Amino acid sequence: MNFPFTSVTAEEYERLCSMYEPLTQSLRRLIDAGIRTGVDEETIRDARAAIDEVAGKLEGTRFETTSTLRHAGTGRPLAWANPAVGLRNAIAPPMNIQHEADGTCWAEFDLGIAYEGPPGLVHGGICALLLDHLLGEAASDGLTKPKFTGTITLKYLRGTPLGTLRAEAFVERTEGFKTYARGYLSDADGHTVEADGVFIQPAWARDAG
Amino acid sequence: MNFPFTSVTAEEYERLCSMYEPLTQSLRRLIDAGIRTGVDEETIRDARAAIDEVAGKLEGTRFETTSTLRHAGTGRPLAWANPAVGLRNAIAPPMNIQHEADGTCWAEFDLGIAYEGPPGLVHGGICALLLDHLLGEAASDGLTKPKFTGTITLKYLRGTPLGTLRAEAFVERTEGFKTYARGYLSDADGHTVEADGVFIQPAWARDAG
Repeated sequence: MNFPFTSVTAEEYERLCSMYEPLTQSLRRLIDAGIRTGVDEETIRDARAAIDEVAGKLEGTRFETTSTLRHAGTGRPLAWANPAVGLRNAIAPPMNIQHEADGTCWAEFDLGIAYEGPPGLVHGGICALLLDHLLGEAASDGLTKPKFTGTITLKYLRGTPLGTLRAEAFVERTEGFKTYARGYLSDADGHTVEADGVFIQPAWARDAG
Repeated sequence: MNFPFTSVTAEEYERLCSMYEPLTQSLRRLIDAGIRTGVDEETIRDARAAIDEVAGKLEGTRFETTSTLRHAGTGRPLAWANPAVGLRNAIAPPMNIQHEADGTCWAEFDLGIAYEGPPGLVHGGICALLLDHLLGEAASDGLTKPKFTGTITLKYLRGTPLGTLRAEAFVERTEGFKTYARGYLSDADGHTVEADGVFIQPAWARDAG
């Protein structure tokens, strides 16, 4: 993309992952605990104070943005902060996306109670978040080309149960500045949600080809 | 909905809110700090240990599910754990949805870096999550009637900037078991995303009218 990027070597990337990934995993556990807890008011107050103290320490050095790092090996943005795939964003499950040689993208991941809509089922909007992101990855060659979602349609075939899921996406065709991508969310019994999206190369990126 | 509910009085609701809301707000601050922090490895390790300790205490008493509470005054599910509106889910911005007498639903909220896709812009999938939820609220009279998303189409008119946003949704028409809802996400300059959804009353709820 036409934004200033800093390249990160594969080695430095591994070092950063091993530093940040466990922190984010612990944060995901804490989000789950915050939803489920039934401890008394005093314990909740103490927990809040402890959380504020940790936040204060982490805020000691603070980046305004984290979206400017790119992996030197793959050429892809690290997308640390991304709410679908970000290794440093506790909101993300995260999807750890695999890119096949034919351009297909897929990910397997577990969704717990933090992603629930109707009882026992994934929130329909979470399905939309994950499929929008995955179709965008397929349409943009792993975020290396600037493409923005123009339109996306999600068809819910049945409820998506919490637990282990798989998402996949691929490009159907490209016509001029428009790339048509398609994808699915599935459980062990097959597809639960279908997605069709049109992704558009923005005007500012068209001259560059 | 046809799930077992426990009624919560308005007074008890206020007490629970004042207990849980500050905890979740602190957690949202911690998610942001986790994304932005540039502190050294030792401080990160210490932060992680402190987070695990807090999680351990909150897990001392743990509910398997939190989706069975209903507000005695409004008749609506509390949806504590919901990733779009949940007061106890740090993933949710949250949207604090207002229900107008004519059935229109709207919310104003701020989205920070945890919801970012392209630099400075809200992730398209987060727009989808919030609009899917809001259209669902409009279609189901504030989640008091069982309706599931059948299909939803999102049209992205332009990038949605991080910051203060407004979302609104309303029912266009109902045909048999299908309810057609429409909505928008807007910044100060107008609409950024349009959504059209078809919401379906499940077969098991049709006999009850």
